Amino acid sequence: MADGLNMSRRIRRTPYTDRVEAAGVRGFTVVNHMLLPKAYQQSVEEDYWHLREHVQIWDVSCQRQVEIAGPDAARLVQWMTPRDIRPARVGDCLYVPIVDDEAGLVNDPVLLKLAEDRFWLSIADSDVLLFAKGLALGAGMDVAIREPDISPLAVQGPKAEALLTDVFGTHVRDIGYFNFGWIEFSGTRQLIARSGYSKQGGFEIYLDGGHLGADLWDAVWQAGQDHNIAPGCPNLIERIEGGLLSYGNEMTRENNPLEIGLERYCSLDGSVEFLGRAALERITADGVRRVIRGVLFDGDPCPTCATPWPVMAEGQQIGQLTSAIWSPRLKRNVGLSLIDRAFWNAGQQVTVLSADGQSRSGEVSALPFR
Amino acid sequence: MADGLNMSRRIRRTPYTDRVEAAGVRGFTVVNHMLLPKAYQQSVEEDYWHLREHVQIWDVSCQRQVEIAGPDAARLVQWMTPRDIRPARVGDCLYVPIVDDEAGLVNDPVLLKLAEDRFWLSIADSDVLLFAKGLALGAGMDVAIREPDISPLAVQGPKAEALLTDVFGTHVRDIGYFNFGWIEFSGTRQLIARSGYSKQGGFEIYLDGGHLGADLWDAVWQAGQDHNIAPGCPNLIERIEGGLLSYGNEMTRENNPLEIGLERYCSLDGSVEFLGRAALERITADGVRRVIRGVLFDGDPCPTCATPWPVMAEGQQIGQLTSAIWSPRLKRNVGLSLIDRAFWNAGQQVTVLSADGQSRSGEVSALPFR
Repeated sequence: MADGLNMSRRIRRTPYTDRVEAAGVRGFTVVNHMLLPKAYQQSVEEDYWHLREHVQIWDVSCQRQVEIAGPDAARLVQWMTPRDIRPARVGDCLYVPIVDDEAGLVNDPVLLKLAEDRFWLSIADSDVLLFAKGLALGAGMDVAIREPDISPLAVQGPKAEALLTDVFGTHVRDIGYFNFGWIEFSGTRQLIARSGYSKQGGFEIYLDGGHLGADLWDAVWQAGQDHNIAPGCPNLIERIEGGLLSYGNEMTRENNPLEIGLERYCSLDGSVEFLGRAALERITADGVRRVIRGVLFDGDPCPTCATPWPVMAEGQQIGQLTSAIWSPRLKRNVGLSLIDRAFWNAGQQVTVLSADGQSRSGEVSALPFR
Repeated sequence: MADGLNMSRRIRRTPYTDRVEAAGVRGFTVVNHMLLPKAYQQSVEEDYWHLREHVQIWDVSCQRQVEIAGPDAARLVQWMTPRDIRPARVGDCLYVPIVDDEAGLVNDPVLLKLAEDRFWLSIADSDVLLFAKGLALGAGMDVAIREPDISPLAVQGPKAEALLTDVFGTHVRDIGYFNFGWIEFSGTRQLIARSGYSKQGGFEIYLDGGHLGADLWDAVWQAGQDHNIAPGCPNLIERIEGGLLSYGNEMTRENNPLEIGLERYCSLDGSVEFLGRAALERITADGVRRVIRGVLFDGDPCPTCATPWPVMAEGQQIGQLTSAIWSPRLKRNVGLSLIDRAFWNAGQQVTVLSADGQSRSGEVSALPFR
């Protein structure tokens, strides 16, 4: 029990935690001062195969919303991200890296444009609300910033659309990828987006009103019985294979978006004004020194990667691997690593020094893993 | 195992985690994206009696330092806190509530004044660095803000001074309460403060250089054998009895410092300019509506308080209890609760609705509990 998690109010429960416990959760992690389920009765591998074939219900309430509203809302959001948000329309979801003045990554949320002057940032694990508040107060911007009572529930997997059509009607099918629409639930209007932290397709319901949490869970669970639903959570095998990065794991403020492979979200044509612009222009001029890559490597299933593992080539460290797991599909270990420029081509032979003391042969791979 | 904690790089290990595991840690919590040990082999009650009599070594690396340095450093720090920092001298530690423009509590760190233009904020659980960065960038202040490689190690309990004198010399005795001095360790100069998150006395060593973590732990542990040292962590019984508040538990951004009993850290004479000043002046004029109090209550040892418990009187809710535990010394349950104005006098009869469904009789108490 070296990995017990001690509970307190500070580690916030979610509107779904009672149901998550009843469903047999075996472990949590903490994101945004809130519980995120990380394991149920199934093994990670059983969970992986199930997610690829059926449908799962995930409590992702920890994806807290930072609401930015008011006359200066669009200006503040744009100031925080190198992505040009001008093309966004109401109903769009945009993946927006947030950077500081040194182009260090502060978070990598999904932006939901609710109105021309009202946005949600659906955040990864850092207090974006405090960053936004600081910027707005420092610059004297006319915005209201708060964390509303919104608790996302993800429904992921190939059967997600069929399941949600059963519950909420066929118009769910019309919602495009990274768009959101609206559903009726228990006399309320609720936001639903075609999005989620897997590559298997699915939706996220941004439940407005925590008191409705158990009812929403039950409604999805009930209808899910016809679709072989299971309780689940972001799956480490599926995430790594799919090349989905995790803030705090693959990227921190030590990293800029270019080395994390986010150049398509960086508008450097001079038409967008944002915090890290000068820094990003400098990095572009100098050339990116390292970039995120996949690494396939040998040996028996590797242990948990809880601190970066050195990746070696030609007798020197050329990268650091920050997430890794055994892939039952590829029958090898897969990992995500920053790799120095001279070594980042797919096929480059490397050695991974895993935490169990083993030296494991491997090679650099493109992402996602095939 | 419903309370397992899943590990990843995002939940950062500390320079002491290897030693903490070797010492038999049984549970962690997460503070500032970092592991904080919460239980060893001893029960919380055994740990409590030990802490009151002997000395303990605590890994409190999660008390991250936000370093603010540069020409505008003092101005930025003052802007964030209602406490007048002008009287502070180099070598002082100051407890400084940090508030936003609505006087909502953002954090309650200890400020260490390292130089006239260089400060550390030793923080509780929120990303103060992002708030400070936002303010500085928004207002165009000339400061450098970073999280240095500093990992506090606490040595707490009545024998702490004798132990640390053995290791580092008699000058440790000369360090006053909430002051810091310097010690030599392994050829390096290290900051040591007489402070810590208990009422039993002790010190915190702000280790500069994570690579020295295991050596420092071993040096303290070795010398501690003569003083009946044990591995420990903030003790919930001792903390509640002592009236020590916890950010995220007793206070959040929903609370202002006046209702949390921090009025002595709020300079409202008009001579200090800070973010929440207008809001605090308004709250003062209106009168504080509720305030933090102790509650003593009956029944068998209460369960963990993971969500606020209603506190009732005269048929209505008059408070919310946010931390609670059985006190083996007082032979009753003790808790910390906001209590509405009309009911906040010591001796007020109340009923606590604990999470196990029990209604427990009790009364309001001054803090600390006697």
